Amino acid sequence: MKIGILGGGQLAQMLALAAIPLGHEVICITSDTQAPAKLVADILLAALTDTEALLQFAHQVDTITFETENIPPATMHFLAKHKPIYPSLLALEACQDRLLEKQFCQTLGIPTARFWTVDSLEELIQACAQSSFPAILKTRRLGYDGKGQYRIKSQEDILQVWQESPQQDLILEAWIPFERELSCLGARDHNGNIITYALTENYHSHGILHISKAPATAPKNLQALAYHYLTMLLNQWHYVGVLAIELFQVGDSLILNEIAPRVHNSGHWTIEGSYCSQFENHIRAITNLPLAAGSALGYSTMVNALGTHPNNQQLLSIPYTHWHNYSKTARDQRKLGHVTIHSLDRSITEASVAQVLQLAPFAAVNQST
Amino acid sequence: MKIGILGGGQLAQMLALAAIPLGHEVICITSDTQAPAKLVADILLAALTDTEALLQFAHQVDTITFETENIPPATMHFLAKHKPIYPSLLALEACQDRLLEKQFCQTLGIPTARFWTVDSLEELIQACAQSSFPAILKTRRLGYDGKGQYRIKSQEDILQVWQESPQQDLILEAWIPFERELSCLGARDHNGNIITYALTENYHSHGILHISKAPATAPKNLQALAYHYLTMLLNQWHYVGVLAIELFQVGDSLILNEIAPRVHNSGHWTIEGSYCSQFENHIRAITNLPLAAGSALGYSTMVNALGTHPNNQQLLSIPYTHWHNYSKTARDQRKLGHVTIHSLDRSITEASVAQVLQLAPFAAVNQST
Repeated sequence: MKIGILGGGQLAQMLALAAIPLGHEVICITSDTQAPAKLVADILLAALTDTEALLQFAHQVDTITFETENIPPATMHFLAKHKPIYPSLLALEACQDRLLEKQFCQTLGIPTARFWTVDSLEELIQACAQSSFPAILKTRRLGYDGKGQYRIKSQEDILQVWQESPQQDLILEAWIPFERELSCLGARDHNGNIITYALTENYHSHGILHISKAPATAPKNLQALAYHYLTMLLNQWHYVGVLAIELFQVGDSLILNEIAPRVHNSGHWTIEGSYCSQFENHIRAITNLPLAAGSALGYSTMVNALGTHPNNQQLLSIPYTHWHNYSKTARDQRKLGHVTIHSLDRSITEASVAQVLQLAPFAAVNQST
Repeated sequence: MKIGILGGGQLAQMLALAAIPLGHEVICITSDTQAPAKLVADILLAALTDTEALLQFAHQVDTITFETENIPPATMHFLAKHKPIYPSLLALEACQDRLLEKQFCQTLGIPTARFWTVDSLEELIQACAQSSFPAILKTRRLGYDGKGQYRIKSQEDILQVWQESPQQDLILEAWIPFERELSCLGARDHNGNIITYALTENYHSHGILHISKAPATAPKNLQALAYHYLTMLLNQWHYVGVLAIELFQVGDSLILNEIAPRVHNSGHWTIEGSYCSQFENHIRAITNLPLAAGSALGYSTMVNALGTHPNNQQLLSIPYTHWHNYSKTARDQRKLGHVTIHSLDRSITEASVAQVLQLAPFAAVNQST
């Protein structure tokens, strides 16, 4: 089949790397002349708002998916008239807006942080009075990797944060005093079959994912809860493909932080560390092939390379390392690649991880979420 | 780095799939407009004898490798003046000619079948008198997948076989009454470090590889012998990249059948079934990166899809199957793809293999080597 992907970044590249051995071809539509996917996919160089290009794209492909939720709604509706789009337009619309996302979770009984819509300074002051500090002011749309987020530590910060913010379409979220952040990924096929991946434990640096460890050690009831939330969302949306949810663990409960209706950075370990990667299962789902079990194969840790490229000689001399270079130009805090350390023995994985974290750009920095 | 590959078939495709995540780009030179590698590599469409194209190719790449040993020697020597060629010109020259290959093995004390050069009917009659029946008449050069091989079962066959053969540059080999066929793969880097893969047990159908199982159960002394032969060859040739040897097991001894100075069909299981695939280790070696351990991860069986494409729905509904479609047009006995069945549990792998072998085109046929 010919698969069309909206976007041409590293997620599109890894989707194409999984699609080709299944006999598919991939076409990406992107305005980035340096798109990482160009090494493994045809590129249609155009803006996602270029109606003529979108029509040409739709005519060339059998099925459409996306690597980012930041797609103009008009683009999605236009394409949907011509070709099937997966995973789900409903999911995409909900996930494009933090307010809709949280409201939808509420209707399903999935706990989230408390939140207030904010479109004026008065509303922000009022929301802060109801929340506790710290609280986070976020743009409702188009945020990623910590962008569009403003922390309010106390009453005194309110005015300055307001001035720094876009001053409209905002949401204030109460800060969750979480013990750790987990993510949970799974896939659903056309027939409603669902597979799930092992819970993953995530560490961020300056709002950007830094380290993912899988499988996360977690009591059975906590795992069941995560899979329950994920499964509800997959079924509610008649979802076809991979879905990721980010969760805060607070004692015995899980609070949903964010939903990504796509393959997800915290699932990159599944390439080496599971029976079938998130990328292959996403491709299987959207091309109407049976899903494969995602069970973990041993112990994996993924570390993002942010801002600078590693020394490949040094990195690959560490046992059990797999380097994934996205072929992007270096830029401050940019995701340039990731390394996965994978073995069947937890202590072997941990020993190699300790060595990797000695190297730039993987070195542990001040970790926060 | 820019890697140049001579040839654009499925081996080039899988090399490119391994090269891209390491940050490399691949250019293949081939005269096949439908080259499977075109999905993941740039193609320079030209004959391997086109000097102008070869020069252009050499200027575009940093390092050169090949996916087939059937490269004109003049081409290799021409390219070698411009860019480094791996794994080894010495190995390539020895492996291009069954006579030189066997003579080289003799100098190292590696046992082979008894053999006689044949360039006339008289020489064939004389050789048959010294050999036992059955014996195999083979072309010295350009044979693959059973092509250029003629079985002589008795005195009476000699004349007919001679008439069917090219009648020059031939070698008669005594038939080895082997118990099973094994292969052994390994890689060597620029510094002389060597990694090896688990011994693989192979089953052929009409001279074409049908099934490979790894790790092959074999006593320690037999494994040591295989690795000893492989290591001698790797070191003698100052080899850089992946080398495969095919061996006949006869009791406690191993008789070398063929050497392939390249990634090999019997090593395709290493993609899922080992810590680092033959393709990635070949790319690591030729781009001067450290090799990774090739230790087996559980139990794998690879089955070639010959002649017709499988039904993907059926195939992928069998647990633990991974399909590798080379995107080639179907043709009788052509290698169109392979499936690898892989799990950490031998009985689970075997159960799925049994299901796969029920399906066309994987169904077990009359097996011979």
